Amino acid sequence: MNASTYAVDGERLWRTLAELAEIGATPAGGVARVALTDEDRAGRDQFVAWARELRCTVHVDQMGNLFARRDGSDPQRLPVVVGSHLDSQPTGGRYDGAYGVMVGLEVLRVLHDHDVRTAAPVEVVSWTNEEGARFPPAMIGSGVYAGAFSLVEGLAAPGIDGTTLGAELERIGYAGEVPCGVPAGVSAGMSDGAPQGAPDGSGRRPIGCYIEPHIEQGPILEAAGVALGTVTGVQGIRWYDVTINGQSAHAGSTPMEHRSDAMLAAARLVCEVDEIAARRAPEGRATVGTLNVGPGSRNTVACSVTLTVDLRHPDADELSAMHEELLAAAQGPLFGPQSSGGPSNDEASGAGDLRGRSLPRPQITPIWYSPPIVFDPVVVEAVRAGAAAAGFEAMDITSGAGHDACYVSRVAPAGMLFIPCADGLSHNEAESILPEHATAGAQATLHAVLALAS
Amino acid sequence: MNASTYAVDGERLWRTLAELAEIGATPAGGVARVALTDEDRAGRDQFVAWARELRCTVHVDQMGNLFARRDGSDPQRLPVVVGSHLDSQPTGGRYDGAYGVMVGLEVLRVLHDHDVRTAAPVEVVSWTNEEGARFPPAMIGSGVYAGAFSLVEGLAAPGIDGTTLGAELERIGYAGEVPCGVPAGVSAGMSDGAPQGAPDGSGRRPIGCYIEPHIEQGPILEAAGVALGTVTGVQGIRWYDVTINGQSAHAGSTPMEHRSDAMLAAARLVCEVDEIAARRAPEGRATVGTLNVGPGSRNTVACSVTLTVDLRHPDADELSAMHEELLAAAQGPLFGPQSSGGPSNDEASGAGDLRGRSLPRPQITPIWYSPPIVFDPVVVEAVRAGAAAAGFEAMDITSGAGHDACYVSRVAPAGMLFIPCADGLSHNEAESILPEHATAGAQATLHAVLALAS
Repeated sequence: MNASTYAVDGERLWRTLAELAEIGATPAGGVARVALTDEDRAGRDQFVAWARELRCTVHVDQMGNLFARRDGSDPQRLPVVVGSHLDSQPTGGRYDGAYGVMVGLEVLRVLHDHDVRTAAPVEVVSWTNEEGARFPPAMIGSGVYAGAFSLVEGLAAPGIDGTTLGAELERIGYAGEVPCGVPAGVSAGMSDGAPQGAPDGSGRRPIGCYIEPHIEQGPILEAAGVALGTVTGVQGIRWYDVTINGQSAHAGSTPMEHRSDAMLAAARLVCEVDEIAARRAPEGRATVGTLNVGPGSRNTVACSVTLTVDLRHPDADELSAMHEELLAAAQGPLFGPQSSGGPSNDEASGAGDLRGRSLPRPQITPIWYSPPIVFDPVVVEAVRAGAAAAGFEAMDITSGAGHDACYVSRVAPAGMLFIPCADGLSHNEAESILPEHATAGAQATLHAVLALAS
Repeated sequence: MNASTYAVDGERLWRTLAELAEIGATPAGGVARVALTDEDRAGRDQFVAWARELRCTVHVDQMGNLFARRDGSDPQRLPVVVGSHLDSQPTGGRYDGAYGVMVGLEVLRVLHDHDVRTAAPVEVVSWTNEEGARFPPAMIGSGVYAGAFSLVEGLAAPGIDGTTLGAELERIGYAGEVPCGVPAGVSAGMSDGAPQGAPDGSGRRPIGCYIEPHIEQGPILEAAGVALGTVTGVQGIRWYDVTINGQSAHAGSTPMEHRSDAMLAAARLVCEVDEIAARRAPEGRATVGTLNVGPGSRNTVACSVTLTVDLRHPDADELSAMHEELLAAAQGPLFGPQSSGGPSNDEASGAGDLRGRSLPRPQITPIWYSPPIVFDPVVVEAVRAGAAAAGFEAMDITSGAGHDACYVSRVAPAGMLFIPCADGLSHNEAESILPEHATAGAQATLHAVLALAS
């Protein structure tokens, strides 16, 4: 069987994406198919109907995760799984999540059209509540599957509208009976060490390997003019809360050298946070997205600032180094003379004569760490080779956002494929992709699936 | 008459300050004697009673400004006037304003005790609504007096509680009949050119010269360990509103070089604003007191920042230079490569490899300019000599805050004398001064008055 024999039907894929986007369509051209709403049910019903047309079996687990299965020829093989999620943000785009599930469906259709019998089964999955817009946090369905949360936690997840995830699953008829997650009494953490891709005693549907096609939700592929991204991993993330306590003072009567200006200290920290990432271009990322000032009067020196820092890097050691640099900066000469001897950097560079001032030092509290994820090399190589076989230029890329593949990678070999989206825009009704990119991603996925399932 | 013959009674001054502070006293030890409240009336009544005990005549003008007059021997001379204001912030201190009026009262008491007949009359003034806390803006009483506002504007000033200044003056019985300000039909601006200290056709009470003793409301004297400040002038002030419009972007998926980060641009501007003042230490002042971020999410690059800038300098040319530097900074290399050739400063210093990024440029709107005020050299020298004659160390100082003396200086020779206040704290119930500083300021004022009135 020569993989290059088979080609996806790009027009059919595009039509299918458009048809799905009618479910929960918004006037502005996006979709509102929030998890476990009537619109989500309608989207699921449509997917199930399409899968059954292909004579797939459909399995629903206890978290409402949907699996459409096309059997393989070798009963010993675990399935090659393609998928993503059908739920959306409240004012979401047409492609975030939906693209991956519809690519999986297109792969099933090609196999069906040509009556291809792969050795391994091929399954398409739609994970429940990836967005977390209604039931925070995000990715609960794949999270329970991978043991990051218990089934009890997942079903009890409270909705922002007073419902619970479990009750709404029942309501829309997608509370399945297939086990999901680790059995009661087995700690969630243990599942991390379970044999990848093998039935591991949890009872959940086994996955041989997992490919998640997705829009990039960033500008890199578009800027590079490349149709496909081979996703090698997901950035690690560190979040911090920062407090700076200075002293309020009259803007007119208080000389600069008498000030303990929380705003100036914050500004220097923001610039330094930027430098921490700039030193690691293009992979390092650092963002100060919030900043609040007290008392917030135009003629009063600020007595307090609170701000947040978001550091990201795909390499755990580099992210640790960024963490250390952030903490060191708060103790360093940016905020006044250091107690230990020797000239400060500022003095050495002959900076302004007021550099000797002591500014209030930032108090930095780490509040969250999500380690970097390195995707399975076999899956990554299958995606890379699939893109090449499909005749498209691909570049390696790291995901800056979380995806179901992150949790799945804890318990099965996983990888992702990105296609560009216009202006990197996502979580927005204006989210947009090109048909040729949609086709390219599907064709590369088809090749990867055929290789992995052969 | 040898001025050094006479000495103020420091204990009496201290007792009088304490007695006045009982009117509107707050549990935390401050005062709430907000303009034209019952407490303000009670404070005025007390001042009038004390003045009448000294056989002074009391005159109330149309703005409620109070003048207590002790006649001189020469009917041709215009009065030497000492004073400040009796109103306070809602949670104000015991000395802001009150100190200057009580020093004036103590001077009258010394003259009365020793039956001193000066050549020029001596008057003590309390200006209406200096604080502006109830009837914004500040310094309306002296402002109308000097023609900065018309009488109609002054009386119509709306209170934050729905009243008007004029109606509340009537209510508390301090709507006087002595003309205040320029006559109807004469433009306010013209009064600036009126002969100083002479009756100028406005009908307002003439002032020969004006001395305003006041607490510093800043930390300079305390830090220098000096009891008295000879105030040579008042800083000029420039205010700006700044808008920075970037582009919101995902903190994870957007590389640093693709960002248009309004927060980073704002931080660089805040640091530069500080440098603009630091280059002019110790006189230059620059403050960013407010900063608001949109959308204000920890994992989203900021699309917008608004902030304010407050620049101050006692020299008009220097303040203009600061203004130009601020505007130039917004067009300079801090926010990306300049269109005109040559390496930027950042490139020259070998800064980070991402310096070539284009950050959103700040849009800077000047919204207010208050020119610097240089006090009358004769009055300033009289204050300086008075301090020396009183045997106290004095230093020249510039006021960073506005005072009634600013408006008075438009139409009469004016000057000020500062005494230290603890930690530079003011507009606060914890405002505090030392008895020896209170006495020193009164003694210096007495000497200056005797010299100017001789």
